[in-house]
Amino acid sequence: MLNVMFNAKSVAVIGASETKGKIGNDLMISLLNYYHGEIVPINPKGGKVMGIPAHTSIKDYGYVDLAVIVIPAPLVLRAVRDCGETGIKNVVVISAGFKEASEEGARLEKELVEICNEFDINLVGPNCLGIMNTYNDMNASFSSDIAHKGKIGFMTQSGAIFAAILDYADKKNIGFSRLISLGNKAGVNEKECMENFMEDENTGVITAYLEGIVDGPGFIQASRKASKIKPVVVIKSGTTAKGSEAVSSHTGTIAGSDSAYDAAFSQCGILRASSLEEMMDFSRTLALFPLPKGNRIAIITNAGGPGIMTTDATIKAGLELAALTDETKQKLTEGLPDTANVKNPVDVLGDASPERFGFALDIVLKDPNVDGVIYLVTPQSVTDPEGTAKVAIEHATKSDKPVLFSFFGGTRCAEAEKVLTDKMVPNYLYPKTAVTSMKALYDYTVIKNQEYPEPPQFDVDRTKVEAIIADARKRVLKPLD
Amino acid sequence: MLNVMFNAKSVAVIGASETKGKIGNDLMISLLNYYHGEIVPINPKGGKVMGIPAHTSIKDYGYVDLAVIVIPAPLVLRAVRDCGETGIKNVVVISAGFKEASEEGARLEKELVEICNEFDINLVGPNCLGIMNTYNDMNASFSSDIAHKGKIGFMTQSGAIFAAILDYADKKNIGFSRLISLGNKAGVNEKECMENFMEDENTGVITAYLEGIVDGPGFIQASRKASKIKPVVVIKSGTTAKGSEAVSSHTGTIAGSDSAYDAAFSQCGILRASSLEEMMDFSRTLALFPLPKGNRIAIITNAGGPGIMTTDATIKAGLELAALTDETKQKLTEGLPDTANVKNPVDVLGDASPERFGFALDIVLKDPNVDGVIYLVTPQSVTDPEGTAKVAIEHATKSDKPVLFSFFGGTRCAEAEKVLTDKMVPNYLYPKTAVTSMKALYDYTVIKNQEYPEPPQFDVDRTKVEAIIADARKRVLKPLD
Repeated sequence: MLNVMFNAKSVAVIGASETKGKIGNDLMISLLNYYHGEIVPINPKGGKVMGIPAHTSIKDYGYVDLAVIVIPAPLVLRAVRDCGETGIKNVVVISAGFKEASEEGARLEKELVEICNEFDINLVGPNCLGIMNTYNDMNASFSSDIAHKGKIGFMTQSGAIFAAILDYADKKNIGFSRLISLGNKAGVNEKECMENFMEDENTGVITAYLEGIVDGPGFIQASRKASKIKPVVVIKSGTTAKGSEAVSSHTGTIAGSDSAYDAAFSQCGILRASSLEEMMDFSRTLALFPLPKGNRIAIITNAGGPGIMTTDATIKAGLELAALTDETKQKLTEGLPDTANVKNPVDVLGDASPERFGFALDIVLKDPNVDGVIYLVTPQSVTDPEGTAKVAIEHATKSDKPVLFSFFGGTRCAEAEKVLTDKMVPNYLYPKTAVTSMKALYDYTVIKNQEYPEPPQFDVDRTKVEAIIADARKRVLKPLD
Repeated sequence: MLNVMFNAKSVAVIGASETKGKIGNDLMISLLNYYHGEIVPINPKGGKVMGIPAHTSIKDYGYVDLAVIVIPAPLVLRAVRDCGETGIKNVVVISAGFKEASEEGARLEKELVEICNEFDINLVGPNCLGIMNTYNDMNASFSSDIAHKGKIGFMTQSGAIFAAILDYADKKNIGFSRLISLGNKAGVNEKECMENFMEDENTGVITAYLEGIVDGPGFIQASRKASKIKPVVVIKSGTTAKGSEAVSSHTGTIAGSDSAYDAAFSQCGILRASSLEEMMDFSRTLALFPLPKGNRIAIITNAGGPGIMTTDATIKAGLELAALTDETKQKLTEGLPDTANVKNPVDVLGDASPERFGFALDIVLKDPNVDGVIYLVTPQSVTDPEGTAKVAIEHATKSDKPVLFSFFGGTRCAEAEKVLTDKMVPNYLYPKTAVTSMKALYDYTVIKNQEYPEPPQFDVDRTKVEAIIADARKRVLKPLD
């Protein structure tokens, strides 16, 4: 139902402005920078905005696929009603001053929802940063730059996270398909976004930052369906009692019990991230790499120490160290120097050239006992990090097994990082991060192959249950905790 | 006992070479780049090396404070004997080809140790990358650049980690006092380094990457003493059975049981890092910030979402969310906009200027209920990351409480990162990293205040115990595991 919105061929900006620093100005710039569809500025004064003739009201112009509203909260209701009467079905309300602000705001928001229901309008927000679809070159947000094109569909309940992730992704060259800032979630919620991202063919991974969930059962159903088709990565914050208090003072929603979320998430194939770092690492990894068929990991390294640490991390993560076949070991023995270690972790030695690294990677990838490879490079005196990155990418792209790279260093690894970043390939700076990302890939392999039985339905005598609960409440029974 | 070595006023390079690509050449360059003491090249051909007259043997020159040996393994024994006969007491053997390589190498290493014992020589290595003392401008390693000057004393059993950490630290502007690559630890081991770093006044934090421990009881004694004086951060790898196997194929030592290390480390005040990332984060943090008196943390943020996540991470880490005094809340209410949150986490709102951030930080730092502050900045449309970083450093440096910064973003936060990096202040990119680093600070507060009772000594009938063990061995009893 949100496809018309994301693929809008015309966008009205209600509150478009020439004045620098106003959100109505930012939004016009965001659209003008990239968007090829029709842009319709709405401003009560009429005239022109950024060189485009403005209309005094949306009714004065007529139908558009999407209206973005950036006028003060008390004026929003009128504008949305105008949209409804014009037949517009998609509205993004960026304006703040609703439920998050005051009781009066909450009242306004309730009315806003009623109007949207009356006219069957999809409402995003209020109190949000807008939406983007990189495949429609549409940046209907007040972030001035559009995201890089890619496969991650991202929804977020926090506007700050929307802005911060865009800035983070810009530096690291991470690509997105669709982005949506959910704001107060008065209309469109996480369930509807999940369904939309699931169906969008440009979206390869669905990623969500959530503080609370509006429609629990709906979200579970949607996630269960979506996670069979593409990976779903969710970070749920407000998971401690104190964090939950902070949620409630932030958006006025209830965060819910952490363990309940954990159970629900694992029941519907969601990969739960425990930090922003994991959220982004998992999403990038799943967007890029083929899935491993199993959990047998080979490590290729130019140094013993990092190889050992990675072995520890691999085992602790619940993955296995692949037992290389005799044939593989034989070939490695033939092609590597005498002192190289041809058992997993394969140590190609500190003086390894890009070619030697490439040789070992090639042999190891062909081993039927290997499901995925972690490729560790530390910058030793004769190491050529850039060449080593190039040869790795070349071999990795030919394989149907995932090869995750960890160049652990700094100044001398900058060129290698650039080689990877230019191709949108992550460098997992710390070997442990490569392992947790490999684990996420393997977890999704398991999820994809898993059958979720429908939860059993019981015939329940609701009257009786309610009576028991009411009785317990009267006697002030404490929960068992 | 290693002070003469680290503060050497004269260094001989046995195996000094003019030939590019040879380690004996790298080492000459490393020294010449920074060192102000006397450099004595030793080369059987005599002549000059890099413009300095070379001697054909160390005996030909005489005493130096430190001899660094980079000739092939079979020739090392003769050279070390020469050193002994010349009265030299400190020798670093960089050459490989000893225990790590072959049985013949193990035999050579044994002889090497005997010679060093005979002449009472401190032997570093063999099979190592060398040593540095930034306060003596001495880079006696084959890493071409000397480390930045700072407070971390670093010992490592892995040469690759030595090189990689130097490269990492160069980019992030992390400073070191002394560094030592331990190699095969045939002579100088982790215990002696611990004692040396403990006494060195330029060293504020002792950091170690270890795969095995040679002298367990000695190390525990030394760590227990050192950790009362300065923080000791250790990463111990080879902690899983598979990792331990990898250790044994790497250096031929036994890694030992992980839980035994855990118990021993916690008994002697060691902060155990679980990854390279933690090792470096903990070390930098402890080198820079004052210790918190307690675990009550305040969070200042310009966004609700990151504030909630940080609250979750704080509670999960075992820290507490500080309950701000009424006075603090009153002052914040007076100075911040109406919609700001003056409860912890303090939300200064998305449009916060550097001044507003500074105002809140100042008030919160003065609250007697606050032991430390986490300062979270996300780049929103009007945020000035650079200014926000400057104002934060200014306030933080005046306080005796730790203020840890997390600028979560990318391109737009680059200037803020630069402001911090130039002052050697870490940016904890992810809020969760700021929390785990704060936890390390608090953990060390606890360690410093802790009394370690001497372990009880038992009168043991050794003969009887040995008989029981011998009997058990005879009957091939399996360990209980």
